[in-house]
Amino acid sequence: MEQTESGAAPPTLGVGMVGYAFMGAAHSQGWRTAGRVFDLPLLPVLAAVAGRDATAVRAAARRHGWAAAETDWRALIARDDVQLVDVCTPGDSHAEIAVAALEAGKHVLCEKPLANSVAEAETMTAAAEAAAERGQIAMVGFNYRRVPALSYARQLVADGRLGALRHVRVTYLQDWLVDPAFPLTWRLEREHAGSGALGDLGAHAVDLAQYLAGEPLVGVSALTETFVRKRPLLAGVTAGGLGGGAGSEAYGQVTVDDAALFTGRLASGALASFEATRMASGRKNALRLEINGERGSLAFDLERLNELSFHDHTEPAVTAGFRRILVTEPGHPYLEGWWPPGHALGYEHTFAHQARDLVHAIASKTPPAPSFADGLQVQRVLAAVEESARNNAVYTPVPQTRPN
Amino acid sequence: MEQTESGAAPPTLGVGMVGYAFMGAAHSQGWRTAGRVFDLPLLPVLAAVAGRDATAVRAAARRHGWAAAETDWRALIARDDVQLVDVCTPGDSHAEIAVAALEAGKHVLCEKPLANSVAEAETMTAAAEAAAERGQIAMVGFNYRRVPALSYARQLVADGRLGALRHVRVTYLQDWLVDPAFPLTWRLEREHAGSGALGDLGAHAVDLAQYLAGEPLVGVSALTETFVRKRPLLAGVTAGGLGGGAGSEAYGQVTVDDAALFTGRLASGALASFEATRMASGRKNALRLEINGERGSLAFDLERLNELSFHDHTEPAVTAGFRRILVTEPGHPYLEGWWPPGHALGYEHTFAHQARDLVHAIASKTPPAPSFADGLQVQRVLAAVEESARNNAVYTPVPQTRPN
Amino acid sequence: MEQTESGAAPPTLGVGMVGYAFMGAAHSQGWRTAGRVFDLPLLPVLAAVAGRDATAVRAAARRHGWAAAETDWRALIARDDVQLVDVCTPGDSHAEIAVAALEAGKHVLCEKPLANSVAEAETMTAAAEAAAERGQIAMVGFNYRRVPALSYARQLVADGRLGALRHVRVTYLQDWLVDPAFPLTWRLEREHAGSGALGDLGAHAVDLAQYLAGEPLVGVSALTETFVRKRPLLAGVTAGGLGGGAGSEAYGQVTVDDAALFTGRLASGALASFEATRMASGRKNALRLEINGERGSLAFDLERLNELSFHDHTEPAVTAGFRRILVTEPGHPYLEGWWPPGHALGYEHTFAHQARDLVHAIASKTPPAPSFADGLQVQRVLAAVEESARNNAVYTPVPQTRPN
Amino acid sequence: MEQTESGAAPPTLGVGMVGYAFMGAAHSQGWRTAGRVFDLPLLPVLAAVAGRDATAVRAAARRHGWAAAETDWRALIARDDVQLVDVCTPGDSHAEIAVAALEAGKHVLCEKPLANSVAEAETMTAAAEAAAERGQIAMVGFNYRRVPALSYARQLVADGRLGALRHVRVTYLQDWLVDPAFPLTWRLEREHAGSGALGDLGAHAVDLAQYLAGEPLVGVSALTETFVRKRPLLAGVTAGGLGGGAGSEAYGQVTVDDAALFTGRLASGALASFEATRMASGRKNALRLEINGERGSLAFDLERLNELSFHDHTEPAVTAGFRRILVTEPGHPYLEGWWPPGHALGYEHTFAHQARDLVHAIASKTPPAPSFADGLQVQRVLAAVEESARNNAVYTPVPQTRPN
Repeated sequence: MEQTESGAAPPTLGVGMVGYAFMGAAHSQGWRTAGRVFDLPLLPVLAAVAGRDATAVRAAARRHGWAAAETDWRALIARDDVQLVDVCTPGDSHAEIAVAALEAGKHVLCEKPLANSVAEAETMTAAAEAAAERGQIAMVGFNYRRVPALSYARQLVADGRLGALRHVRVTYLQDWLVDPAFPLTWRLEREHAGSGALGDLGAHAVDLAQYLAGEPLVGVSALTETFVRKRPLLAGVTAGGLGGGAGSEAYGQVTVDDAALFTGRLASGALASFEATRMASGRKNALRLEINGERGSLAFDLERLNELSFHDHTEPAVTAGFRRILVTEPGHPYLEGWWPPGHALGYEHTFAHQARDLVHAIASKTPPAPSFADGLQVQRVLAAVEESARNNAVYTPVPQTRPN
Repeated sequence: MEQTESGAAPPTLGVGMVGYAFMGAAHSQGWRTAGRVFDLPLLPVLAAVAGRDATAVRAAARRHGWAAAETDWRALIARDDVQLVDVCTPGDSHAEIAVAALEAGKHVLCEKPLANSVAEAETMTAAAEAAAERGQIAMVGFNYRRVPALSYARQLVADGRLGALRHVRVTYLQDWLVDPAFPLTWRLEREHAGSGALGDLGAHAVDLAQYLAGEPLVGVSALTETFVRKRPLLAGVTAGGLGGGAGSEAYGQVTVDDAALFTGRLASGALASFEATRMASGRKNALRLEINGERGSLAFDLERLNELSFHDHTEPAVTAGFRRILVTEPGHPYLEGWWPPGHALGYEHTFAHQARDLVHAIASKTPPAPSFADGLQVQRVLAAVEESARNNAVYTPVPQTRPN
Repeated sequence: MEQTESGAAPPTLGVGMVGYAFMGAAHSQGWRTAGRVFDLPLLPVLAAVAGRDATAVRAAARRHGWAAAETDWRALIARDDVQLVDVCTPGDSHAEIAVAALEAGKHVLCEKPLANSVAEAETMTAAAEAAAERGQIAMVGFNYRRVPALSYARQLVADGRLGALRHVRVTYLQDWLVDPAFPLTWRLEREHAGSGALGDLGAHAVDLAQYLAGEPLVGVSALTETFVRKRPLLAGVTAGGLGGGAGSEAYGQVTVDDAALFTGRLASGALASFEATRMASGRKNALRLEINGERGSLAFDLERLNELSFHDHTEPAVTAGFRRILVTEPGHPYLEGWWPPGHALGYEHTFAHQARDLVHAIASKTPPAPSFADGLQVQRVLAAVEESARNNAVYTPVPQTRPN
Repeated sequence: MEQTESGAAPPTLGVGMVGYAFMGAAHSQGWRTAGRVFDLPLLPVLAAVAGRDATAVRAAARRHGWAAAETDWRALIARDDVQLVDVCTPGDSHAEIAVAALEAGKHVLCEKPLANSVAEAETMTAAAEAAAERGQIAMVGFNYRRVPALSYARQLVADGRLGALRHVRVTYLQDWLVDPAFPLTWRLEREHAGSGALGDLGAHAVDLAQYLAGEPLVGVSALTETFVRKRPLLAGVTAGGLGGGAGSEAYGQVTVDDAALFTGRLASGALASFEATRMASGRKNALRLEINGERGSLAFDLERLNELSFHDHTEPAVTAGFRRILVTEPGHPYLEGWWPPGHALGYEHTFAHQARDLVHAIASKTPPAPSFADGLQVQRVLAAVEESARNNAVYTPVPQTRPN
C-alpha cells in the first residue's frame, strides 16, 4: 500500500540560507528537523542556499539537503520559492543582506551579533519595524535562549521564583586561542569581525543576561586585552607551515580583543558581571551563568546544557540547596517534541527550537523574540563596553532602545 | 543558478523500517541525519515504514520523512527499494521479522534486546550467520556503544590504559514506575515484554559491560523484585480514570520485575555488579558505570553523556585524579562530523552514529558490531540472571557463544 | 586578673584508651575537642593511654595529650581515674578488653567492627547487656553515623520524607591495595584481621544501610575475590626493600578478600546492594550511598562529606531534582557547636560527635546507639556474606538479633 | 606504669589571644591542635585570653582551654608567660593592639584584614619591620592560604605548570544578608567594620589572587552596592522583636557595601575579576576561584575544600580535562600530620596549619608569609577599589609596596 497524500499536510515555508559554514550547517539541521519533531503550522522547505564559490555551494547544498544553490545572495532573495531568508554570513554583511531581504518582502532570520556596529543595527531595526507593518517577521539568532534549561530559567524568573534580583554573572570561556601559533584568521581582524571575544561570546552573554533578567543593562565598566598581539599569517601557514623560515612578513597584527571583562548595572539596580575569553585553557564552551535573587537563585553551564540548578530560598534552610533539574520533562519548554525524561538534547537542538518559534511567529504574525530591536540593544551594550575600555574603564551608560 | 547534479553523488541505500513509536522516531532521525553529517559510501534513503494501523502509519511516514507507508511488514520486506530492514517493534516480533528479512536477502538492523528468549536469539544468530555468507549484514541496536564517550572509553580500555581490570559496575536507574497508579502497559506483562527492567535496562548494562571490558560475563548471581504487584488496567484508566469506582477487575497483575540486582564475574576474573530498576525516584535515565583497573579507572553517567571521567593511576599521586574529559574534540569517535569542541551532542545522535557504522559495514562487507551473536550473548546473560533469581541467587554460569 | 574557678565547671569523665595508631589519634582528637565545642554534662579528661611498647606509648601519650601511659591494658582498666575504656586495638583483641572493662565496671567505647566473629560479638553483647543493668554504657564506634549529613539523612528517612524504601546501595571504594608491591601487613592476614575489605569497609557500609533504613538486612548473596594472592612479606620489605634479591620466601599468602560484592533484602522488602574494595584505582575513601523511596531519594559521598543530595519526589516534576544540601546549617545535627554555614567539617569531627553522644548517654544513663547489639547485627551480616560467598553466592538468611 | 617526663619535650611558646568570638574559637582550636598533629620546634601553650567582660572571658577561657583570662589586652601583652599575641578583635582595634604587642617585644598574629585603613596598615607594617630586626615575627591571618588545596595550587603555579597567566577570577559569595530583616550589627556600620563584603570577603579574595599568582594587582575598576539600606536596629530587635510596633527609630542606616564587583590587572598583564557579596542566596561560603594560564588551569571551591581541579593543557586534547585532585595525599602540603588519603579536612584545620607555620617561622627566625607587608598590599587594593567605586569605576592604580 503506497502512501497517499490524503490528510491535511500543512502549507510550506520556503527557506533560503546565505552562508554555509559552521552556522549554516547548524541552521540546516534545525530546518530539516523542526517539522519532524514539532507540530508546525508551516512546514519548512530547504529551498536554496547561497555562497560565492559555485563548486563549494553546490557541495554544501547536497550535503545539507538544500534543493538549489545560488552564487549571489541577491538571486536567492529574488527566488519565488523563498519566503524566509536566513543570514548565516560574518557580521560585516548582515546589514546589507537583511535589509535587502526585508525590502524584498521576505521574513528574515539573522545570526548574532546583529551587526558589527550600532549604526548598522539601527538601520536593520528600522527596516524590520517597517517590514513588521507589512506582516514580515525579523528575528535575530540568539539561539541559546532556546536551550530548554534557559527558556525554563526565564520562566522561573518571570514567575517571581527569584524575587528581586541582586546579581547576574555570566562567563563565556573558550580556549582555542591559547596556542600562540594559532593563525591570524579573519575573526582576529577588526575590519571583518568587528570585535573579538566580545562580539563572538560576549554578545551571547549580554543577550542572556538581559533575557533572563527581563530587563536591560543601563551601564557598564570594562577592561579588554589582547594577550597575543601577533599571529602567523594564514597565507604563510598554508604556504610553508608555521614559522617557516619567513621573516616578520609571516606575522600579522591581531586587531581584536582576546578577552573582555565587564561589570554593569541592570535597570532594577541588580549588579552584573561578565567575562568573555578565548584564552581559558581547558574551557571549551563554558557559558556559565548564575542569577541571585531575594527568593532564589539559578545556575547553568552550557557544557551541561540539560541541567538547570535552582535554589529556592523560601525553603527551610535545613533542606534547601541547589537542585539539579534535568530539563527533559514533558512540561519543560520544547520537550513536547523530543524523548522521554532523562534523554539528553544537544547543542544543535536550539536551532530546531529557533525554527519552530520563528515558524509560529510567521504563521501567527506575532512579533518575534529576540527581535532586531533586542539585537540592537545588545549592540549598544557592546559599544558601551568598548567605549568604557577605551576610557580607562569608566562607567559608561548604555543608551536605551526607545520603548516600542 | 540552479544546482545541477554534477559531481559524484554516492549510491543510495533504501531503508525500510518496521514500527514507528519512540524507537522509530529516534531511528528516523538517525537515518535522516547520518548522510548530512558524515561522509558515507552509501546515502540512506527513507524508503518506507510499516505499521498495522493504516492511518497512523501514514501520519508517521509524513511526520518522520518516509517516502511510503505499508501496513504489512512482509510487504515492506518485499519492496525493491528496500535493501535494509530496520526492526523497531517490541521484542516478541523481532525474531520473525528479522529472520524473514534476512531470508529475503536484506540487511537487518534489529533493536535491542535481540529477542525475548535465548532460543529466538539463537535462531536469529543462525540466520544472520547464514546471511553473512551471502554478504548481508545484521546488527543489533545497542546504540549506547555509539555514545562518543563510551566509544572512547572502549578505546582507552583496548589501549591498555586501565591495565588488568578489577571491577565493572553498571547501574541503570529510572523512576517512571515509582507511582503505583502508573497503569499496566504491555511492558509490564511477561508474555509481551519478556522481562521488566532486566530486559529493558539490564540488557544495555550487560552489553556495555562486555563491550567496554572486551570480554564476556561467565556467571551471575541475581535478585529480582516486583514492588508493585497490581496496577490499574490500561482499559480502566482510559475508560474511567484511575480507581474510578471499579472493583478488583480494574487492576491487573504485574508479571515482570521492577528491579534486578546482579553480580558476576568476567572471563578475566574481574568482578561485575549490576542494577536495573524503574523505581529509583529522581533518576531519569541514570545509566552509570565505572571500571577500575590496575593502571586506571573510568566513570560515566548517561545523564551527562558528553563527559567521560578518567583516572590515570600511573600519574604521581599528588596530581592524579578523575579528569572530566569533554568528549567533543575532533579526535574523539564520531566527532569528525559534528560541531567545534564543547558543543554538546544528545541522545539521538547515537542513532546517526549507528546508521553511519552500519552503512560502512554494508559498503565494505565487514562484520558488524554489535552482531546478532553479541545480542545472543547478552540474552544468555539475561537468562542466567533469571535462572539465578529463581534459584535463590545461586551463582549461575553463562553458556558462552562459540568463538566465531 | 587571673581566672578563678568560679562557676559550675562540669564534673569530669576519665577516659582510658587502648591503642594509639590511626584510630587512637583520631579518638584522641575527638576526646580533646568535644568539650571545647559542645556543652557537655561531663568533661572528658584524657587520663591514660595503653600500649605494649613503653617508649612508643609514652611518646603517643605526649603527642596526643594523655596524662599517663600504661604498657598493660589491664592496668589501664584498673586505674581509678578511668571511668571509660576506649578500645582502639585490632579486632582480635576487642572482645577480651571490652569484656574485662565492662566487668570492671567501666563504660566502654569499642572500635568497629565489634569483633572478628559472631561468637565474640555475642559474648560482648551479653557482657554489655549485663553491664547496662549496672548503669554502664557500651557503644561501638561506627563513627560515620555521626557525619552530620548522614545523621540528617537518618532524620529525613525517619520523618517519612522518602516513603516506602525500594533501594539501598552502598559502595565503599579505596585503592591502597592496587599496587601488587604493597606488602603483606597484618590487615591481609585472616588470623589477625578476620576479613579484608569486608570487615574493614563493608562493616561501615552494612551499619550505615541498616541505620539509615531503620531496619535490618534479612539475607544476602555474595561474591568475594582476592586479586593479588601473594604479596611481599613485610620483613623482607623492611630488611631489604621490595624484591630485594630474595627468593620465593620473600612472598606470603594473602588470606583475606580484596573485594566483596553482595546484594540483599531489608526487612521491609527493599533491595540492597553493597560493594567493598581496596582495588578501585583513584577512589581514596569513596563511601557512596543512595537510597530510593516512593516519596524521595538520598545520595551521599564521603569524599564530599559536608553535602547531602536529596530528591523530593512529591514536588512537581518540572522543578524536582537532587538538591545539594550543605549540611552546615545551625539546625543540622551537631552543627550547634561548630562554625557558620558553609564552613566545612572534616573526617575527624565524627569522633568529637561520637564523644559528645557517648558522654550524654553516660550522664543520662540512656541506652547508646550504636549499641553492642547493633555491632553484633552487623557481624551477623558479615558472617552471612562470607557463608554465601563460600556457598556459590546462594541467598543466605541473616539471623536476627532478638528484639530488646 | 606512670608516664615520666623523660625524652626531649620541646620548649613551649606562650600564646595570648585577644578576642574570643568566632575567630577566637577557631584560633583556639588551631593552637590546641597544631602540636598534636605536627612535629613542632616549640609547643604552643594557651596561656591567656583577653576580653572586656570578665564573666564572659572567664567562660571563654574555660571553654576553649586557656589557662588564664584578662579583661585588659594591655595586661595580656604584659604577661611574662605570653610570647605571642594573637589578635582576634574587629578590625578597628588591630593597629593599636598589634603595635603595642610588637613594641613589647612579642610576636604577633593578626587576623585579616590587617586594618581598616591603609594608614593603619602602614603603621603596623613599619612596626613589624622594626620588630623583625629584633627577631620578632608578625603574620597576618589569611588562613585560606593554608587550605591544602590552595597551598598546593600555589606550588603548581610556582612550578610553571600553568605557564604565563591570563586570567584570575575569584568570587566569594555568601547569603546571610539576603533577608532584609537581618539586623544592623556592627559589621554593617562603616565606623566599626571599615567596609562590608569588600573587607570581610574581598580581602580574602584579593590575598588569594595575589598569593596564587605570585604577583600583585596593579590597578582595579569597581562597582559597589548596598541593596538593603535600612535594617532593624539591634536594640529594637533585642527589646521587642523585629518590627515590634516601633516607628522609624527602629531602623538604622547600613553604611557599608552589601556587594563589591571589581576587575583588575596583575603585574604580568593577566586580567583579574572579583566579586564579593553577602546577597547570593544559596551560597553559604562559596569562595570560588579559577586561574587560566598558557599551559594549564586551576579551579577551586571552598565549599569543597579538599578538592583541587587541575587542567594540564600540555596533554593530548583527547585525554585532557579538569581533574579532581583530592588534596589528601601524603605528599600534599600539611598532610603529613593528618589522616590517610581521602579522609577530608575541614575549615578549622587552616588554623592549625597557620599555627604550625608561625611556630616554625618563630623558631627559625624566618620572615613569615603572609607578612604585615602582604596585608598592607591587600589594604591598598581594597582602598583602590573603594576609590574606583567612588569615581565612577574608573581604573585606579594600586600603589605598590616598596620592594623589601
